[in-house]
Amino acid sequence: MINWKNLDTLKSFEELGKVARVDLVKAMSGESGAERVKKYSVPMAEGMAYNYAAKEVDDDVLAALAKLADEAQLTEKYEELYNGAVINTGEKRMVLHQLTRGQLGNKVEADGVDKREFYEKEQKRIAEFAEKVHSGVIANAAGEKFTTVVQIGIGGSDLGPRAMYLALENWAKKNNKFKMEAKFISNVDPDDASAVLNSIDVAHSIFILVSKSGTTLETLTNQSFVMDALKKAGLEPAKHMIAVTSETSPLAHSDDFIEAFYMDDYIGGRYSSTSGVGGAVLSLAFGPDVFAEFLDGAAAEDKLATEKDLLKNPAMLDALIGVYERNVLGYPSTAILPYSQGLSRFPAHLQQLDMESNGKSVNRFGEPIDYVTGPVIFGEPGTNGQHSFYQLLHQGTDIVPMQFIGFKNSQIANDVDIQGSTSQQKLCANVAAQIVAFACGKADDNKNKNFEGGRPSSIIIGDQLNPKTLGALLAHFENKVMFQGFVWNVNSFDQEGVQLGKVLAKKVLAYETDGALTEYSKLLNI
Amino acid sequence: MINWKNLDTLKSFEELGKVARVDLVKAMSGESGAERVKKYSVPMAEGMAYNYAAKEVDDDVLAALAKLADEAQLTEKYEELYNGAVINTGEKRMVLHQLTRGQLGNKVEADGVDKREFYEKEQKRIAEFAEKVHSGVIANAAGEKFTTVVQIGIGGSDLGPRAMYLALENWAKKNNKFKMEAKFISNVDPDDASAVLNSIDVAHSIFILVSKSGTTLETLTNQSFVMDALKKAGLEPAKHMIAVTSETSPLAHSDDFIEAFYMDDYIGGRYSSTSGVGGAVLSLAFGPDVFAEFLDGAAAEDKLATEKDLLKNPAMLDALIGVYERNVLGYPSTAILPYSQGLSRFPAHLQQLDMESNGKSVNRFGEPIDYVTGPVIFGEPGTNGQHSFYQLLHQGTDIVPMQFIGFKNSQIANDVDIQGSTSQQKLCANVAAQIVAFACGKADDNKNKNFEGGRPSSIIIGDQLNPKTLGALLAHFENKVMFQGFVWNVNSFDQEGVQLGKVLAKKVLAYETDGALTEYSKLLNI
Repeated sequence: MINWKNLDTLKSFEELGKVARVDLVKAMSGESGAERVKKYSVPMAEGMAYNYAAKEVDDDVLAALAKLADEAQLTEKYEELYNGAVINTGEKRMVLHQLTRGQLGNKVEADGVDKREFYEKEQKRIAEFAEKVHSGVIANAAGEKFTTVVQIGIGGSDLGPRAMYLALENWAKKNNKFKMEAKFISNVDPDDASAVLNSIDVAHSIFILVSKSGTTLETLTNQSFVMDALKKAGLEPAKHMIAVTSETSPLAHSDDFIEAFYMDDYIGGRYSSTSGVGGAVLSLAFGPDVFAEFLDGAAAEDKLATEKDLLKNPAMLDALIGVYERNVLGYPSTAILPYSQGLSRFPAHLQQLDMESNGKSVNRFGEPIDYVTGPVIFGEPGTNGQHSFYQLLHQGTDIVPMQFIGFKNSQIANDVDIQGSTSQQKLCANVAAQIVAFACGKADDNKNKNFEGGRPSSIIIGDQLNPKTLGALLAHFENKVMFQGFVWNVNSFDQEGVQLGKVLAKKVLAYETDGALTEYSKLLNI
Repeated sequence: MINWKNLDTLKSFEELGKVARVDLVKAMSGESGAERVKKYSVPMAEGMAYNYAAKEVDDDVLAALAKLADEAQLTEKYEELYNGAVINTGEKRMVLHQLTRGQLGNKVEADGVDKREFYEKEQKRIAEFAEKVHSGVIANAAGEKFTTVVQIGIGGSDLGPRAMYLALENWAKKNNKFKMEAKFISNVDPDDASAVLNSIDVAHSIFILVSKSGTTLETLTNQSFVMDALKKAGLEPAKHMIAVTSETSPLAHSDDFIEAFYMDDYIGGRYSSTSGVGGAVLSLAFGPDVFAEFLDGAAAEDKLATEKDLLKNPAMLDALIGVYERNVLGYPSTAILPYSQGLSRFPAHLQQLDMESNGKSVNRFGEPIDYVTGPVIFGEPGTNGQHSFYQLLHQGTDIVPMQFIGFKNSQIANDVDIQGSTSQQKLCANVAAQIVAFACGKADDNKNKNFEGGRPSSIIIGDQLNPKTLGALLAHFENKVMFQGFVWNVNSFDQEGVQLGKVLAKKVLAYETDGALTEYSKLLNI
């Protein structure tokens, strides 16, 4: 029997607040620190590990978190989810993104079909399509191969796929898996589409229109923008465009596209990188085998998240430490700091994933709650961030918990040895140094040069950023956000907060405004 | 007589806390809202305006802020700064970035030279150099023109110049001002340099090495990386590289460069976009005239910041509203939301500018302070953000103040009319709609669809993003951050918080570690 209860009604949460705080400076100094680094680590899929030695936890805090995990029935709720319960209470829908990469539990049926079979069928259709494009069986009107793929989508149809493409682009080039360059058009700002169109050879480009509903204003506008450009170039738009959409959308059975691939209402945009939304562009860019490896990595991580022992479940542990930092220690934001240039847009994807999922003020039954939920998420790759906002992280007045990500090896494996170390060694030395600097600080009589320390971080370490580790990383964070939503008792799978702005924008465009909105419209010359 | 006092010792700050709070929902609804949009606006340079109608202020709050500005002697301190006082108390240096774009006060001398003349001389040298590159007088060994410029730098030598380049790239292409493509190498991750080098024709590329001290680890490593690649391509590195550095740096008089241009210790990295750090790359990419216009825009905005009347000084007003939000209303972060694809990396630049300047816990005399200082800064362009993290901004449990930026016209002026409006109109309609949605909210019996409103924002509106408005925008935020630093009584011009990590990273690379650092080094295979 699953109980959906607010966090502040749980006995274990009250107990958690009473556990003695950890003195991180002391804990991470000397031999104690060395022991923690060895001990506070949990294996992830694909040879990675989540190390939480530099978080403000000890065995007592962890025991209290384990009790909270039990009382909040986190793994049981996850089981409900992957077995097809209506977890998205706001929209009254199942939540099935894990099913795009594996079957963890029972068969899930909806709309009269086995959903795992449905997702696999679409993956197969996409794979066959991609191979035909690569071989030239599907080509432009002149019979020439397509060389570029352009995704037209926004939000979840953009950030996730774009971050994944950038994460694998250099790996693919190095490993002879690179098939086509990918570009992305998302913003309704006409300069976005114009700049992308100016940068490509449209005659050899294939466009993917991605909109689940088939009604997203920005995406349909950019579709028209692109169709216009194709026509002006003397090309037939319908020979250059495919769609990824739901079967019930107006785009589903249209002559405007070479082909349409299907998604459904059970996968939210921000969880759709492993569905056709990511599948089409990634399969075209890198080939279906690379996309399949990416799914395998995610599936392996999903499986780890079923583990009931908190200390063996990296996503659940990460989630609960985050709740502890947010609701007990009171930290309002979290920084995502990947030491890997390939992950340059991964923080932007996690910003959506996390903030759109858990930035909620009502519980899953629509009742107001009395505790804080999702934090602000931001980040940039290290070492760049070190020369930028890390000043505040080290010496600012607020404490910002951090999530580092690092890999032992680079993707391109082209490196130089300077002053006795490679760039990759310098990169790794920096992330190690930062963790210890943040945790331990360093006393200085000159208070301007004093580091108080006590600034908590975790690190995920892997051998290399590749399709499998990327899939595992993605799933880790998706599952972390899901578990946090369970703890906070919110629905992490709707986004009603984006609606009001859409409604008002339509009013502005229809000149049906009054008051302040009329005045802003005048100022902006609409 | 200037008094440097902590914020919590100011009588006007105590009074500010007692002023009645503004009910933003009420204030921004109906006729009152319309009046506020018309009234709460202050002209900026280059035809722009800072509109703060949707901030939680009214005449009483503004009067209290004006008193605070007076008691904190903000314009007097600015005057001290541009007249050459040692404002950077930590490093005992003057702060002269405004002098790169104009002379607001007295002559400033240092190192035996008139600093305005020094900056102008370097600008002229860069302009002449850029013109020789464009005309082919300076060319590669084969006598062929350079077509690409690559900046090698990190932090302030990267984020600002990169953001400015991206902001003007499409404008320049549209207006026949585009001379050379620019690329940027910053991260010590070898994949960063490798990917950039793989994407260019090195034989026709000129590299700018940017490091004030000439000792930045990442930048020197990437210099060697690039020199290696040039040698492997059979090219002579010294014929492909220039330096921007201080006259006392090891790079200053080296045979490794075609030419060296000079900066000095009076301009911090994050304030250096208008110095040679931005000047070399922007003059090469767009020509010296475009860079000169950019400086003119900044100079005009700097002048506005001297205005003593708070309601006529947009940067000071923006700064004080931010202090009110941070220290009285208690909001821990601020979102930067430009509705302009050209400003895609502007938030990343402001993140550094703000968080590195004011993320401090001691005052300018090195004494601990008892109030919060700089907030977390993050942001992405709209409308993209609307489909991402805006959910939390609308319905999350924390309030996040916002700074919107919008332009009436696009840069490329290529647009389509769909359903009765252009993309640019849709873009502008969305920003107007968001401001009102955030401020006013909308009651709904379904609490999941309820918008409480009361979420404050300002907007800067301009005609178009071009060199002059970009210069003004940049200077606005630089001056905002400076004024906030004055209010908080911190030194906004040093960054001691980045030092400890550097020291520890060197220890790791020298294998001189113990405790936790040794264990992390093992995990990362260093």
